[in-house]
Amino acid sequence: MGRTFAFHSVPTDVDRGPEHAVERIAGGVVNLLESARMRIEDVARIGLATPGPMDIGAGLLLTPGNLPGWWDFPIREQVAAACGLPVRFANDANAAAYGEYWQGAGARTHSMVLLTLGTGIGGGVVIQDSLVEGSHSCGAECGFILIDPRPDARRDSLNNTGTLEAYCGSYGVVGRVVDALAEGRDSNLTEVLKTAGALTPLAIARAAEAGDALAIEIVLDTAKYLALGIVTLIHIVDPERVVLGGAMNFGGAGHPLGERFLQQVRDEVRPRLLPPLRKVLHIEFAKLGGNAGYVGAAGLARLEHLQTV
Amino acid sequence: MGRTFAFHSVPTDVDRGPEHAVERIAGGVVNLLESARMRIEDVARIGLATPGPMDIGAGLLLTPGNLPGWWDFPIREQVAAACGLPVRFANDANAAAYGEYWQGAGARTHSMVLLTLGTGIGGGVVIQDSLVEGSHSCGAECGFILIDPRPDARRDSLNNTGTLEAYCGSYGVVGRVVDALAEGRDSNLTEVLKTAGALTPLAIARAAEAGDALAIEIVLDTAKYLALGIVTLIHIVDPERVVLGGAMNFGGAGHPLGERFLQQVRDEVRPRLLPPLRKVLHIEFAKLGGNAGYVGAAGLARLEHLQTV
Repeated sequence: MGRTFAFHSVPTDVDRGPEHAVERIAGGVVNLLESARMRIEDVARIGLATPGPMDIGAGLLLTPGNLPGWWDFPIREQVAAACGLPVRFANDANAAAYGEYWQGAGARTHSMVLLTLGTGIGGGVVIQDSLVEGSHSCGAECGFILIDPRPDARRDSLNNTGTLEAYCGSYGVVGRVVDALAEGRDSNLTEVLKTAGALTPLAIARAAEAGDALAIEIVLDTAKYLALGIVTLIHIVDPERVVLGGAMNFGGAGHPLGERFLQQVRDEVRPRLLPPLRKVLHIEFAKLGGNAGYVGAAGLARLEHLQTV
Repeated sequence: MGRTFAFHSVPTDVDRGPEHAVERIAGGVVNLLESARMRIEDVARIGLATPGPMDIGAGLLLTPGNLPGWWDFPIREQVAAACGLPVRFANDANAAAYGEYWQGAGARTHSMVLLTLGTGIGGGVVIQDSLVEGSHSCGAECGFILIDPRPDARRDSLNNTGTLEAYCGSYGVVGRVVDALAEGRDSNLTEVLKTAGALTPLAIARAAEAGDALAIEIVLDTAKYLALGIVTLIHIVDPERVVLGGAMNFGGAGHPLGERFLQQVRDEVRPRLLPPLRKVLHIEFAKLGGNAGYVGAAGLARLEHLQTV
């Protein structure tokens, strides 16, 4: 249960449109069956996860920002028809959370919150072994937790002020460095910015590892801002575990900077919790990396199959 | 289903201790059976809701601030033994949320968030028809949502800075008036404070109704702060409905000030939501008033009974 028999990846190729993507998905399924030496009769269901906004019940993409030209596409029924199998449709961040809950950092728990740190901040919440997908397919949109009420707070990609994403999404992290440099802070990142023309979280992590004081401060501030969102999440959900996934993990588990970042998150969260929650705090890095999404989508398809038969 | 056959209320009498309270609860049950012309054989289960912190699984009070001398008391088994019936034990704010979901403002929904506005800010979350009680009996502690990250932000009763309760609990509302008066703001509340020696949310509401500019500003600011917490809750839970309960509702439904407050909450929440959530926003006042807690406790007892037999 939960083992990967075969893996196949195809590019999204947004510009070729969703119909073409469905054809490639169907081709990918054929490819997977061959690799795994299985027949289509051996497969109960397909798991399909996409970015939102979406309508999970209707199987529709709505207005995903990264998929222009795909809006309002009935992707669930199109993939189902092309593959000849029922499809469980889910939000990609939610699916990743379900993957970590099922096979990763949340295994053997009944409730878990995942925050995925990347360009945006994605999220997923599992409570009593059930994924919180929301009444309008917007469950666990944790990037839109408000952490700063000031009108002049940072803005996220949707132009909202003071959201978790505005501070901890990759643009927020880079933006905080750029602001600090503009204020005249001394840092090797000035040189990096001049040479490369732009900054990335990876460049900031490298500077922090090399001992750059501003870069270290930015990484630890990211932990501080993230902690504000986590404190709120914990007081709403009271999960067994909080899991940090996504690429922007400053090296992640086992890496000195990643571990320092994680410890800073814990240290910022703990004193702000209700006393009974302080000693049961568990914040960990995700375990499945980029596989969490497909593992979770498959797990959700499995669950839907079990509930259907 | 959900009808009240008989109602009986006894004072808590904290100082007489929990054993004495259990005796009075058992006496109350006898009284209720008589009033409702029922026998104990007609009753499947008792619903019992108390303030937290608590251990719901173990049936224990832990350290409830308003019940000194009751700490670590095994209230569930003591009530069960005294009454001769199984007991469903719940957090009082959670029970109120379940009551509103079952018979009040959340009826005919599958997911709902309740915020109770009073001395503190209580909360309850129902997702997919299930109450979120948390992994450590701290689910939906919505008063501890962080809305302001500044170290000099207001403090709540537990001395945490920047929580929703610090701004919207009754001490927070009164404290904001006191601060404004200390800054020299002109208001009839100066006179009220001098005469009465203290301010209450009720006095502030009356001044607002009489047209006092500061009082009106404080009421609308309360809506603004509350909206910050609600935006976060909606992006995590994506409920069908958000319900505002508790005594500090500025008159509540049908009252001009209450309706103005509610409309201000909606107007502050809507533009901060993800676009798909804006047109499905439902924020309403609670319907059951002070009855929500016992109705919800009974509903939870009913549910536990149905899941047991």
